[in-house]
Amino acid sequence: MMRGRGLVNRLAMMVAAMLVSGIAAASARAEDGYDLWLRHAPLDGEVLARLAAFDGPITVDSADPTAALAVDELRLGLDRLRGAQVQPSDTSKPAAFQFECDHRGVKADGAFRVTSSSNQVRITAGAPIGCLYASYAILRELGQGADPATLALDEAPAMPLRMLNHWDNPDGHVERGYSGRSIFDWWHLPEKLDSRMIDYARANASIGINAVAVNNVNARAFMLEPRYIAKLKRLADAWRPYGIRVFLSARFSAPKDIGGLATADPLDPAVQAWWQAKADEIFAAIPDFGGFLVKANSEGQPGPQDYGRSHADGANMLAAALGDRGTVIWRAFVYQAEDTTDRTMQAYDEFVPLDGRFADNVIVQVKNGPLDFQPREPFHPLFGAMPGTRLMLEAQITREYLGQAIGVAYLAPMWKEVLNADTGRGGAVSDIVAPVGMAGVANTGSDRNWTGTHFDQASWYAFGRLAWNPALTSEAIAREWTALTFTRAPEPLRRIAAMMAGSRDIVAQYTAPLGLAHLMGTGHHYGPAPWVCDLERPDWNPCYYHRADRQGIGFDRTAAGSNALAQYAPGVAARWADPATIDSKYLLWFHHVPWDRRIKGGDTLWERLSAEYAWAEINLRARMQGWEALRDHIDAERHAAVAADMARELKDARWWRDASMAYWQSVNGLPLPSGARPIPEPLEAYKARTFPEAPGQ
Amino acid sequence: MMRGRGLVNRLAMMVAAMLVSGIAAASARAEDGYDLWLRHAPLDGEVLARLAAFDGPITVDSADPTAALAVDELRLGLDRLRGAQVQPSDTSKPAAFQFECDHRGVKADGAFRVTSSSNQVRITAGAPIGCLYASYAILRELGQGADPATLALDEAPAMPLRMLNHWDNPDGHVERGYSGRSIFDWWHLPEKLDSRMIDYARANASIGINAVAVNNVNARAFMLEPRYIAKLKRLADAWRPYGIRVFLSARFSAPKDIGGLATADPLDPAVQAWWQAKADEIFAAIPDFGGFLVKANSEGQPGPQDYGRSHADGANMLAAALGDRGTVIWRAFVYQAEDTTDRTMQAYDEFVPLDGRFADNVIVQVKNGPLDFQPREPFHPLFGAMPGTRLMLEAQITREYLGQAIGVAYLAPMWKEVLNADTGRGGAVSDIVAPVGMAGVANTGSDRNWTGTHFDQASWYAFGRLAWNPALTSEAIAREWTALTFTRAPEPLRRIAAMMAGSRDIVAQYTAPLGLAHLMGTGHHYGPAPWVCDLERPDWNPCYYHRADRQGIGFDRTAAGSNALAQYAPGVAARWADPATIDSKYLLWFHHVPWDRRIKGGDTLWERLSAEYAWAEINLRARMQGWEALRDHIDAERHAAVAADMARELKDARWWRDASMAYWQSVNGLPLPSGARPIPEPLEAYKARTFPEAPGQ
Repeated sequence: MMRGRGLVNRLAMMVAAMLVSGIAAASARAEDGYDLWLRHAPLDGEVLARLAAFDGPITVDSADPTAALAVDELRLGLDRLRGAQVQPSDTSKPAAFQFECDHRGVKADGAFRVTSSSNQVRITAGAPIGCLYASYAILRELGQGADPATLALDEAPAMPLRMLNHWDNPDGHVERGYSGRSIFDWWHLPEKLDSRMIDYARANASIGINAVAVNNVNARAFMLEPRYIAKLKRLADAWRPYGIRVFLSARFSAPKDIGGLATADPLDPAVQAWWQAKADEIFAAIPDFGGFLVKANSEGQPGPQDYGRSHADGANMLAAALGDRGTVIWRAFVYQAEDTTDRTMQAYDEFVPLDGRFADNVIVQVKNGPLDFQPREPFHPLFGAMPGTRLMLEAQITREYLGQAIGVAYLAPMWKEVLNADTGRGGAVSDIVAPVGMAGVANTGSDRNWTGTHFDQASWYAFGRLAWNPALTSEAIAREWTALTFTRAPEPLRRIAAMMAGSRDIVAQYTAPLGLAHLMGTGHHYGPAPWVCDLERPDWNPCYYHRADRQGIGFDRTAAGSNALAQYAPGVAARWADPATIDSKYLLWFHHVPWDRRIKGGDTLWERLSAEYAWAEINLRARMQGWEALRDHIDAERHAAVAADMARELKDARWWRDASMAYWQSVNGLPLPSGARPIPEPLEAYKARTFPEAPGQ
Repeated sequence: MMRGRGLVNRLAMMVAAMLVSGIAAASARAEDGYDLWLRHAPLDGEVLARLAAFDGPITVDSADPTAALAVDELRLGLDRLRGAQVQPSDTSKPAAFQFECDHRGVKADGAFRVTSSSNQVRITAGAPIGCLYASYAILRELGQGADPATLALDEAPAMPLRMLNHWDNPDGHVERGYSGRSIFDWWHLPEKLDSRMIDYARANASIGINAVAVNNVNARAFMLEPRYIAKLKRLADAWRPYGIRVFLSARFSAPKDIGGLATADPLDPAVQAWWQAKADEIFAAIPDFGGFLVKANSEGQPGPQDYGRSHADGANMLAAALGDRGTVIWRAFVYQAEDTTDRTMQAYDEFVPLDGRFADNVIVQVKNGPLDFQPREPFHPLFGAMPGTRLMLEAQITREYLGQAIGVAYLAPMWKEVLNADTGRGGAVSDIVAPVGMAGVANTGSDRNWTGTHFDQASWYAFGRLAWNPALTSEAIAREWTALTFTRAPEPLRRIAAMMAGSRDIVAQYTAPLGLAHLMGTGHHYGPAPWVCDLERPDWNPCYYHRADRQGIGFDRTAAGSNALAQYAPGVAARWADPATIDSKYLLWFHHVPWDRRIKGGDTLWERLSAEYAWAEINLRARMQGWEALRDHIDAERHAAVAADMARELKDARWWRDASMAYWQSVNGLPLPSGARPIPEPLEAYKARTFPEAPGQ
């Protein structure tokens, strides 16, 4: 029996010591970002107190593995949010969290409802995956400080296919990867499954992602061989409880490469039989295999056009092999060296005539813009132009053209720009793609924080959230993510979300001002190289895109030029047709404008271009000061890492400005606008810089 | 004022809950191996109780950053060992740990003394680095359950240079790396220092490593350019407090490659001036820069012989540029395509005539054996043969030829084999190299556990411990490491250390039985390929080494053959000269033996060879069972990972046996020895296997 004053004091001291040690233990393990938005940092104060009433058990009506995960994830999250688990569940009490995962009133596609009372949360879903999504949603709400007694959620995914596309090669290299090596360890599969594969599935499931293409669209045929199917099966088995289906990027010439056939002609019966047998083999190992993602007749990849067949011929042949078991995702990112009038027009020209000719289980995957994931592009004219074809959106989460893993660039505003764009042909882009889905080119890698910089986690998070619900605002997502990842304190949270909001615009401002595009270094796509004009294919050269000469700069895509504008609905084209009225962020995308032309705002184009670079620097410096002011609100490790990211971005932004302005001057012969900072080095010095160690090539 | 029965109960409940939550919090963060041997898992029971008396403050007599680290590391480690910090230091008490870091009675090379009483530990060192080493040594002792009241240590490093050599390329690829990408992020340096660089320095300092060559010996010249010196300076500044000096691998042709000179002739005054200026530039940024590591005239690397100069000419020219500020480490790993009588003899033939001609600040770095880090080699004949030259030992921690990151292979027994070898020329190898140092080719990478498998951490640990004290036994080191990394429970610890002890012998048994060597696949060096005989250079072919024919197998290095034996001292050579008496582990290294010759033990060579493979399988199966029996003693995540490693190794061992035996049979035409397991596939099937995704090429 414990009693007496001495005992009270000893116990009180132990409590105090444990509180101290809890902090010490937490800080001993550095904040390395590995936990992503699933940190579940302990609540405190009133919010924590509110959770105390929910001390009954967690119950579930299903023995399904996914339902069990829903319970485990909720329990783990609640334990962490409570900081200390005050007591084990009191099993004599009614359930604090009650899952019903087979509810006929809810669709089985991942939808769920959450209602709550003063001491009980009730979750209903039409399938176990809805229960799992509900667990993450509850934790997301609680993690932002919601009152558990008033939780009320009624959610369903807007898009059926919410997908990550990995450009990961089987040797561990990630094409356009800036966060280390591939997370997929093909070398040790199937015997060894890295526990990171489970954490990856958790992260994806927590934001609703339900499909993953595990390998680069520039695919190696050997990944279709039996030993790779065994490896893929191990991944599929591990991810299945998290509701994630695996897809493979398939090399169209595989029947020749590994099948011993003389052709890969999609109309050849032997080729068809080969793919049929291959699909059967895969489904035998992975009954819920998602299907094939294909890059064909693009940038040197083989495809049906090698045999005089169309994209539809190729896609439909694979679709027949899959049957109703899976889906072919066929990329619309195609352009041929022979047709270089305007590269941005080729996908439309090739695909619109095929509308209505694709099989039901074919999806055509269209990039957000008609060029190639540039810092800013108008939406792709294919959206709305193929009403008889299932189109999905392809976005790029990895920042190939947006600073790579340097600085801060939150990409949700860019994706919202395209999702919200009115096609003039039956709705916004989000209306077109919502019945199909969205794919994001993944930004994950072996770095401890997954994405190279901490803020790049936000784009992964936002991608999943937008695929679940494209009506969410990028600001709301930024606030969610910040609360879960960095801090719930309202004022720091507000400031961080505000920093995120404008971050991609700043990158566009110094890399692609006023609608310029594709000005980056050859190969690695890092840094400025607007002077490059000698590459084998005309449409690989920056000069092809900026068209700067002594008189002006910009790509004329009006009727007087390539007339790419005509690919858009008339109302849309009309908004962009006049250089005097066009939104200046698209000015040089659509128009060739004289250097001395006064544009919106009153400056000459040359003055305005110079000012854009200067504003970017000012914005970056202000953001650095803002981050510095947040020092007390962010753990030291992540604060320092982000501060370093920002310092590097300022350095790179200044370099972009100096090198670009030096080059524009060499073309237009104009003096720097008055007040402009001198350019510290001659153009030749910028041209001479090399980066043999640049990642992501 | 807190009092009363209710309060007691509430407090008791809080304590209980916190204890529970402490466990929950620990298990919520998976055991991913990142903490290495610095886990400092909480003590319990009597051992924990003993530590309670040491609750006074930690004091130090120095403001040096390294002395501050000694305090921080000790405090962090003690907090973790205590699990809960029972109370903050009672500053009214005498110091519990008292550092004196400038003690004249102790050498300044890292040596330290630790004495203790019932409530105080006193640490004396001649320099702050000794205090830091003492902190780690105290934690190592306490972590193994030592009584703090009886601590008594008096240590000094046996070798002045305790070095890791990274074969890491600036693009992030690690040549012969099996644990992911390089840990060095040159791309983001100098602006951003990955916090992993600090954890790396901690890990190294904790085992006494004091030098790191950061880049591959197959070096890129651009790493000598100013922008890379700025990056290296950031690393050097970060590592300095941990007592670690940076070295650069230097490309000998740099004066041509990046210096604009027409030659790299070491006797050319312009070349000498270029290196002098380069050294000055580096030392201006990094005053304690260690020096250059050079691979010259080996495997296509440039070197002084390109200009008709000797290795001594080349090394001495660089040594003059460094002066007394630094050291040239010149590798003895050289072999020329033209001289292929016996590749293992070339280093001796080239270097012995140069004995006494190297400058004082040149070290010649000699691999453990005369070939190339094979699973088993006799010690290198250069040890003892160059009494007028400073020789250091180069060991390979990464398992290029020892299973890569598959299975378990603890390498300390291999290094002990060479360190203990009596050269017959003035002592054991350890006596020859102790006045100079040891270098290990690092096995670190971006994998969360650093080394690919958990057990590979042990070789990193053991390397440092042996460089500090080569008299330690590999068994003692295995026990230390196991206690710090996995478990202190005596019986599991004993069993794990026993598994480790024989692990490398098993790999040798199935990859290189009876002294065979170099039988691995071309390029990636993974898996068996004894049949390869068509490579451009004769001495790159496995057939060059095994010399199997219808009559027998093995490389005759006696006087009747290449006479490599004559490079050893007569007493040593005599032990290996007679195939009837030689230790069978070296049999086929030195002798060509008929298949039907009865060897030690009574079997024919063919029977014995077959039996070696079979024993390896038996050993691996027994180890898997042993590991399974430890399930309750190891956290689930690491237990599963190691079990998967072991399963994969068994698969690979069976493949090595099947493919090798199929090939030997194709050469000798003999039936399998009676009782031998049938070979499941024809030889051609083994030959046809390809591994395009194999890492580490």
